[in-house]
Amino acid sequence: MPKLTHFDKKGRARMVDVSKKMETLREAIVQGSIFMNPETFRRILSGEVSKGDVFAVAKVAGIMAAKKTSEIIPMCHPLNLSHVEINFYPFEKESRIDIEATVKIKARTGVEMEGFVAVAVAGLTIYDMCKAIDRGMTLSDIHLVKKKGGQSGTYLAKGIGHRVLFLALCSLLLACSYREDLK
Amino acid sequence: MPKLTHFDKKGRARMVDVSKKMETLREAIVQGSIFMNPETFRRILSGEVSKGDVFAVAKVAGIMAAKKTSEIIPMCHPLNLSHVEINFYPFEKESRIDIEATVKIKARTGVEMEGFVAVAVAGLTIYDMCKAIDRGMTLSDIHLVKKKGGQSGTYLAKGIGHRVLFLALCSLLLACSYREDLK
Amino acid sequence: MPKLTHFDKKGRARMVDVSKKMETLREAIVQGSIFMNPETFRRILSGEVSKGDVFAVAKVAGIMAAKKTSEIIPMCHPLNLSHVEINFYPFEKESRIDIEATVKIKARTGVEMEGFVAVAVAGLTIYDMCKAIDRGMTLSDIHLVKKKGGQSGTYLAKGIGHRVLFLALCSLLLACSYREDLK
Amino acid sequence: MPKLTHFDKKGRARMVDVSKKMETLREAIVQGSIFMNPETFRRILSGEVSKGDVFAVAKVAGIMAAKKTSEIIPMCHPLNLSHVEINFYPFEKESRIDIEATVKIKARTGVEMEGFVAVAVAGLTIYDMCKAIDRGMTLSDIHLVKKKGGQSGTYLAKGIGHRVLFLALCSLLLACSYREDLK
Amino acid sequence: MPKLTHFDKKGRARMVDVSKKMETLREAIVQGSIFMNPETFRRILSGEVSKGDVFAVAKVAGIMAAKKTSEIIPMCHPLNLSHVEINFYPFEKESRIDIEATVKIKARTGVEMEGFVAVAVAGLTIYDMCKAIDRGMTLSDIHLVKKKGGQSGTYLAKGIGHRVLFLALCSLLLACSYREDLK
Amino acid sequence: MPKLTHFDKKGRARMVDVSKKMETLREAIVQGSIFMNPETFRRILSGEVSKGDVFAVAKVAGIMAAKKTSEIIPMCHPLNLSHVEINFYPFEKESRIDIEATVKIKARTGVEMEGFVAVAVAGLTIYDMCKAIDRGMTLSDIHLVKKKGGQSGTYLAKGIGHRVLFLALCSLLLACSYREDLK
Repeated sequence: MPKLTHFDKKGRARMVDVSKKMETLREAIVQGSIFMNPETFRRILSGEVSKGDVFAVAKVAGIMAAKKTSEIIPMCHPLNLSHVEINFYPFEKESRIDIEATVKIKARTGVEMEGFVAVAVAGLTIYDMCKAIDRGMTLSDIHLVKKKGGQSGTYLAKGIGHRVLFLALCSLLLACSYREDLK
Repeated sequence: MPKLTHFDKKGRARMVDVSKKMETLREAIVQGSIFMNPETFRRILSGEVSKGDVFAVAKVAGIMAAKKTSEIIPMCHPLNLSHVEINFYPFEKESRIDIEATVKIKARTGVEMEGFVAVAVAGLTIYDMCKAIDRGMTLSDIHLVKKKGGQSGTYLAKGIGHRVLFLALCSLLLACSYREDLK
Repeated sequence: MPKLTHFDKKGRARMVDVSKKMETLREAIVQGSIFMNPETFRRILSGEVSKGDVFAVAKVAGIMAAKKTSEIIPMCHPLNLSHVEINFYPFEKESRIDIEATVKIKARTGVEMEGFVAVAVAGLTIYDMCKAIDRGMTLSDIHLVKKKGGQSGTYLAKGIGHRVLFLALCSLLLACSYREDLK
Repeated sequence: MPKLTHFDKKGRARMVDVSKKMETLREAIVQGSIFMNPETFRRILSGEVSKGDVFAVAKVAGIMAAKKTSEIIPMCHPLNLSHVEINFYPFEKESRIDIEATVKIKARTGVEMEGFVAVAVAGLTIYDMCKAIDRGMTLSDIHLVKKKGGQSGTYLAKGIGHRVLFLALCSLLLACSYREDLK
Repeated sequence: MPKLTHFDKKGRARMVDVSKKMETLREAIVQGSIFMNPETFRRILSGEVSKGDVFAVAKVAGIMAAKKTSEIIPMCHPLNLSHVEINFYPFEKESRIDIEATVKIKARTGVEMEGFVAVAVAGLTIYDMCKAIDRGMTLSDIHLVKKKGGQSGTYLAKGIGHRVLFLALCSLLLACSYREDLK
Repeated sequence: MPKLTHFDKKGRARMVDVSKKMETLREAIVQGSIFMNPETFRRILSGEVSKGDVFAVAKVAGIMAAKKTSEIIPMCHPLNLSHVEINFYPFEKESRIDIEATVKIKARTGVEMEGFVAVAVAGLTIYDMCKAIDRGMTLSDIHLVKKKGGQSGTYLAKGIGHRVLFLALCSLLLACSYREDLK
């Protein structure tokens, strides 16, 4: 059974020792989704609001946050990120925007957490910029899609096809049952 | 129709001017959930892993992150938070832990974003501390539950009963279709 | 003669005591200019490069830096900024972009330094984003335009007409004598 | 024509991928100037104000800011700087202080931006410490002097002789036309 | 018996709620001492090393750290410090430098921790700057001297006369038994 | 005689150039002690206060602070720490808790300062969490125990046996002469 490497013998938190690991190329892809009111979706993507800017600000926020992951997540190692890329995929039917972050580095430890922080912060920045018109926006399903490099090898989330379908369903149900609370 | 207050006339991002607003007591409650493998859930809550610690570290991480919200979310105003509280509610059936943050302040602007950052970072810290045994954990449904104080008055998320049911369903489906990818 | 309030009796640096000052509305406007190669100017403003983005990133950078002024300038008081606005004014003839920051607050001390940091960082961000094509860009003439509120009253920079003329001249001369060094 | 490496295909900002670049020794030298009232200049350099301190504080500020460049400039890579040095060169005739920063590292990417941040912050710190007696001080002509190492090779700013002459002229003109606004 | 206000009912850490407290003038004085090799002491204070600089750098470090106390101490409230002053008192006989920080604010909560952080960081900065010649330096006796303002009233450390005597003794004993380890 | 490497020829502070040093494995161990009221000691360690939490919060604080050492100590090089571990050793007789930090890295420069920052911040966090019941707690004797790797070789503090005895004595004397000031 895999060991919980972040806990020492007495169960206390510690920072994993990576000083003797080799530097290898590593990559992580993380995704998440922000669900919103159709009207909010429309205004972000239409000309009413300069589309570029919501995404540009969210992208800058996500990249800058990824760089300070080790200040935010207590047991993360400081890393000199080589590359961060954030993309947004809008799905009109579900009034949903998917956020995907790709992080790369040559280092002694992986960059999943950097990807998670990038996605979470990019999503929260979208919330912040539009909250005046839609306080019910929900940030959901932030998960690791892929991880490459390092001792533990490649990780690939399964069942992505099912999940996209499933999430589309979610957003519809949520839209029906829940979104009347918007002012 | 409510105005998108974060955008100036040309659609560019800006920080809302709050210099003439009054200082009032404000409060925000934000919730989110982290879904995981039953085995991960068991080890966090059982004696195998000192339960206190995972939650203690996640709580410290969430509180510290809430305090630096204005460094993370670009258009947020710096605020001197008066109070941050983070609680964890484990649901064994769904192998899910709910995270709730309450933030209070006397200020010219609200503290929703501080609550969001607290929940997201507490959740990601749980991920980070257990990722060695469960890379498939998913952080979901981060949303504003309640907001009090300030010009826009009180906000209360509707339909919470439905949503909890719905999310329980989600976690079951996800567990079936998706969690075999764990090593 | 005005006193150098940042130095104590023995000439050592200190943070001015503002604990007994009243909170008043304060505002500061700071300007600066970035001079560049005509080709760089053209590519930033034309369709070749999404114009919105250079300015959007520089604006976010400037706003975020203004918020952390007290971490950057040693003797600055931490302040909860109420408002930061950054605008860019491109002048094609001189291949020059003017950067103007307006900062507002209700506080015990002024916000000039926040304005200066906003302009400097916005300018350096433009440099960073375009340095691959123009290492000779120069950030110049960062100065206080206007200051309102507080004990020392209103300050207004004089002779602005002359200076704009003068700087236009500068940029032309610089363009002639100096810009061949670009690769 | 050199490519704008900070923009992806759709013109959106991104952090350049340096994960496959080699680590090489790199160096950057950046200069800038702060122009001030002759009286301010005299008080900084004479015994009235402990000269050491203004420069000592500005130097510490510049070095500390250089180390946090990647937190300030959005698309900059985090780097573990090996060396930062800041020197000040006072020119009495023009009541001008030149600031020069030298930054060195062994890394996959260059350190120009670290040098720029060091010079800008050292200059703004001088402004901050003396602003009580001279709000008209101007930070100018921040530019890259030299760059060594890395794929793009050595860069050397031309025409430095002309520029010094030219800037001396500037400061004189500015002193005549503009400095009466000091209180 | 006074309550441990940082712990909630279940013994978990939390940030004390101060949102309903009044803003009052508050002040804290904290002291600490750094003990060193006589030779190190001599070189810091003599002309061999510009005395101004060690203390100037340590002072800047202490002031900047005090401003970021809430980022360093997890349960501290963010505060906009009004005043920080740091002084150094060298005692030749004991090769000891005393460090005293005074912090002031008008706020809902006290500033002891800001004073502690200022003293600790100023002391560690002295260590860092001189460690090449004296790795045995010891930072000791960091304690609250005085606290004014707020609900809990004024606190004044007793027996300071005895303690100074006592610490002088300590440094002598330490110098005898322990300092040969310097290279 | 060893050179003061942090000072340049004119006695001004600078960051040591390490760009040509080799990367080697380095380790530093730093210790310190916090002295307190017996009642405070008892409440921290007994069931009245969840013991785990005080130490868990202090440990997280120390680890996070160690990671930001280069932001706190002006002339420290930024480093990507490989490992930080903090342990607490309570001594009931002296109502004293010893704090020990071990830091490891493969880098061009050592990690003593990271160890010092970890110990100081962990200690101050204990103070902060218990200050409501014991304002007289004192953080003392922060010193380097061991240092390995790098050009200057291994350093080992001598006379540790004597010192522990000596410090026990100190704490007793302090307890007698000084601790009545607690409320």
